[in-house]
Amino acid sequence: MASPTATLLISCPDQRGLVAKIANFIYANGGNIVHADQHTDASAGLFLTRIEWELEGFNLPREIIGPAFHAIAQPLEANWELHFSDAVPRLAIWVSRQDHCLFDLIWRQRSGEFQAEIPLIISNHPDLGAIAEQFGIDYHHIPITKETKAAQEIKELALLRQYQIDLVILAKYMQVLSADFIRQFPLIINIHHSFLPAFPGANPYHRAYARGVKIIGATAHYVTADLDEGPIIEQDVVRVSHRDSVEDLVRKGKDLERVVLARAVRLHLQNRVLVYSNRTVVFA
Amino acid sequence: MASPTATLLISCPDQRGLVAKIANFIYANGGNIVHADQHTDASAGLFLTRIEWELEGFNLPREIIGPAFHAIAQPLEANWELHFSDAVPRLAIWVSRQDHCLFDLIWRQRSGEFQAEIPLIISNHPDLGAIAEQFGIDYHHIPITKETKAAQEIKELALLRQYQIDLVILAKYMQVLSADFIRQFPLIINIHHSFLPAFPGANPYHRAYARGVKIIGATAHYVTADLDEGPIIEQDVVRVSHRDSVEDLVRKGKDLERVVLARAVRLHLQNRVLVYSNRTVVFA
Amino acid sequence: MASPTATLLISCPDQRGLVAKIANFIYANGGNIVHADQHTDASAGLFLTRIEWELEGFNLPREIIGPAFHAIAQPLEANWELHFSDAVPRLAIWVSRQDHCLFDLIWRQRSGEFQAEIPLIISNHPDLGAIAEQFGIDYHHIPITKETKAAQEIKELALLRQYQIDLVILAKYMQVLSADFIRQFPLIINIHHSFLPAFPGANPYHRAYARGVKIIGATAHYVTADLDEGPIIEQDVVRVSHRDSVEDLVRKGKDLERVVLARAVRLHLQNRVLVYSNRTVVFA
Amino acid sequence: MASPTATLLISCPDQRGLVAKIANFIYANGGNIVHADQHTDASAGLFLTRIEWELEGFNLPREIIGPAFHAIAQPLEANWELHFSDAVPRLAIWVSRQDHCLFDLIWRQRSGEFQAEIPLIISNHPDLGAIAEQFGIDYHHIPITKETKAAQEIKELALLRQYQIDLVILAKYMQVLSADFIRQFPLIINIHHSFLPAFPGANPYHRAYARGVKIIGATAHYVTADLDEGPIIEQDVVRVSHRDSVEDLVRKGKDLERVVLARAVRLHLQNRVLVYSNRTVVFA
Repeated sequence: MASPTATLLISCPDQRGLVAKIANFIYANGGNIVHADQHTDASAGLFLTRIEWELEGFNLPREIIGPAFHAIAQPLEANWELHFSDAVPRLAIWVSRQDHCLFDLIWRQRSGEFQAEIPLIISNHPDLGAIAEQFGIDYHHIPITKETKAAQEIKELALLRQYQIDLVILAKYMQVLSADFIRQFPLIINIHHSFLPAFPGANPYHRAYARGVKIIGATAHYVTADLDEGPIIEQDVVRVSHRDSVEDLVRKGKDLERVVLARAVRLHLQNRVLVYSNRTVVFA
Repeated sequence: MASPTATLLISCPDQRGLVAKIANFIYANGGNIVHADQHTDASAGLFLTRIEWELEGFNLPREIIGPAFHAIAQPLEANWELHFSDAVPRLAIWVSRQDHCLFDLIWRQRSGEFQAEIPLIISNHPDLGAIAEQFGIDYHHIPITKETKAAQEIKELALLRQYQIDLVILAKYMQVLSADFIRQFPLIINIHHSFLPAFPGANPYHRAYARGVKIIGATAHYVTADLDEGPIIEQDVVRVSHRDSVEDLVRKGKDLERVVLARAVRLHLQNRVLVYSNRTVVFA
Repeated sequence: MASPTATLLISCPDQRGLVAKIANFIYANGGNIVHADQHTDASAGLFLTRIEWELEGFNLPREIIGPAFHAIAQPLEANWELHFSDAVPRLAIWVSRQDHCLFDLIWRQRSGEFQAEIPLIISNHPDLGAIAEQFGIDYHHIPITKETKAAQEIKELALLRQYQIDLVILAKYMQVLSADFIRQFPLIINIHHSFLPAFPGANPYHRAYARGVKIIGATAHYVTADLDEGPIIEQDVVRVSHRDSVEDLVRKGKDLERVVLARAVRLHLQNRVLVYSNRTVVFA
Repeated sequence: MASPTATLLISCPDQRGLVAKIANFIYANGGNIVHADQHTDASAGLFLTRIEWELEGFNLPREIIGPAFHAIAQPLEANWELHFSDAVPRLAIWVSRQDHCLFDLIWRQRSGEFQAEIPLIISNHPDLGAIAEQFGIDYHHIPITKETKAAQEIKELALLRQYQIDLVILAKYMQVLSADFIRQFPLIINIHHSFLPAFPGANPYHRAYARGVKIIGATAHYVTADLDEGPIIEQDVVRVSHRDSVEDLVRKGKDLERVVLARAVRLHLQNRVLVYSNRTVVFA
């Protein structure tokens, strides 16, 4: 409904005049800024900003905005991304046996909370194929064993290319991706069922129960080659007590997992997340 | 420790080029922006921003910044405030019989969390005089009855002038200020012991208990002539259960009240709060 | 999987020996208590308890437990309910146009989080019929106007009887039920999209936005003849800021609504909720 | 104000009739139960309960209650503690340089939130002596070096005996106690400034910042010989963002630390905490 906008996500060494230079670029070309946010990490000497403006009335055609901004960005040694709000990214959801995050993501996409398409579900189990069918989404069952993993990942990469996937969402996919896979397809968001860095790896709810914690959490993060060590996008927690068994933690955790994952995906799709030094700036 | 900064809080009708014009004013005069945040309220057609820059290296002397910015602000029909980070505002804390917020505010001021002075405590009861003495703060006991209220408020206004008070904090002051008082001294933050707009007015914990709520709250807001209807700065909540008596709600509430009030005071002292149409924008 | 249990929910005037008398009844008949919780409301002079024991090894047959306990309860002037854990209550979900709570309740029932059946969906709109069909649930579209309301409620009551419904869940059903309807079918849980008693009635998110609150909430409660005044079962909240439009409040609220409603329904289905004086004791 | 009560905290192997036997003991002696709560850990085969009754009207004199209950407890192989609500435990608060928890604990004790005396403060630094003096509490400065630690701990143990201390509270005491010390004085509550098991040991806020977490926490736990591994009594969290520097985490954390520590101390003083297998049951 809203008129389309362009968004620049920029990070560069901090220096005087950055806000003015970037704002001037947009103003000089007739753009109306609808959202501008910045952050300076003094210890890293880094300036980071997100700036969004209406394309209506903007004098540069879309295909020229990037090259035009490049002329400004280069002397600033800036890293930058340009996004248009009417783009419709294509998501692949990867699952194992649990369906709560899958259901939730599909519901949000169907109800317009995510501006995205979900053409592909990949799973190492056949269990959730019926859900895929129910919603008319292609489902590829790709079982993984230690022996077949390398070969299967090649298949998976081919599928991502074939379906022109922009973002992979590991929605309780209980397999570790190889460093090589991540290098070839680096845009991956995972939901981990603990309050990282507590309980990385396997069985976090069992370990939380054993430790007798009074609060459990969930963490959505970008995937890197180090398991559960990638940049954190969003976390949330819920209170538990001695009355909660491991099964109760799992049940309460599911409510956390789906909402934390959904918030992270939405922030990413709205181009509100900037990564640097294994951290995120979230321009929410 | 940090070098002093200047901060502009600006609100004006939305239009193209505002970010650029304001950023240019600072950049052109050699300023280094350390924090910039903006908000556009599309339905109100209003642009609001907070911009903070280092005074070191800034070419305009302090006393010229205001007049110089006025030239930019006037054609934009902007409301604006200019603050310097090394200013030390003077606070008056008003209390009745409860000491938890008073203690907390004094501790935060003493420990450097607030950059402010607390030269004056006013109370309608004598009870907390000993705390004032313990910390070397002047304590004025000004009892209020229906008959004496008008006369006593005149005394109170005189004290605020005498002590050159910048901000009044109602830290569980259990009297309503008259509209006339507020007109004469409008910078007042109150802590109300409920999750407004639930339970305005008297005895919110008793009423929360009677209603059987599962969560209670506290609200810090600017005081206006309408009781508990002023712009909200900060709120927070805590879970309660059927096991909690009214006394438990009061006790749990105290922990909320002091932290919610302290956050609001700190945000105000850092010039992070902008008020419009009975709402606040908090550039946190 | 667990062996079936019996649960007594009891409230009676407080007096010495209540715990002993009730525990003895179970122990004397060979029962093993797996959960016992009690609460004394001193101001109301009321003792409330929930006690659950294994039926395996219990010497009284199911149909005798009630009459046998009646002999103990009568002299204590106790109100009590007896439930068996292997009962499968039948739920009717009432909706209007929004699907998030409906989807969520169905998912939880399908995944075993609720031990219940959902044979019936009633709506005053046709919109969600496709979801009902997708999951094989009967959908009755019963439009309501001021003129037809009385007649339509008679139809609705007939449906509840026909489908042998135990509990009605108003899952964003945007119509007020008449006092007469509630008298005839009193077991109704509603989700209200505000932190009651703030913003009862219509359009709570719009009013929360207008008031400039910093936190929004949702409330699940039993329905009584007084709109949004029934006993509260569960509430939860989420933080908002000036950046959140009314649409953002609605979106964030949906996540609250479904989880708050689901928790309340689950507590009710597990017979953990006791109502007295318009309040609930939740033996969680 | 309330009439005094007795409280039994009991844990024993689970078996039929436990609730009845314990309730009968109290009822048979004329006691009125004001609070009873129980928990069964099915996997550990353990039954745990807290039962509190009024001493007024109870037929056994205080000094006989223990021996009388012993006769019941022994065949059940029960561990148990008996406490009286009018006991006034004596606390020693241990600090280093930070004053926020100390101030808070003193304020709560002074305002009646804790039923306890605070006759002793021990510190490895002289800094907080002035606060002790202000509130009339003995302050012992006992500096610790690697070389002097063993000798100084002997002094500290002597002080605990001399002041007849019941509970040691490590209120940001930045030294590790030796296993030998803990063996000799095992009742110690510590506040750790992280959400354990995340960031045990030194500098949790710096490490939380480096990891880029979106939520920080605090944990109150009983001290054991394993650093930061003791049974957790209470935890809480607060949201942070990329805008928060390490100093902001420290500041936000202080508010958490004092409230989490205070809740844990209060729960302990009210005899609501039972420890087993390095976990706590909190009968709140």
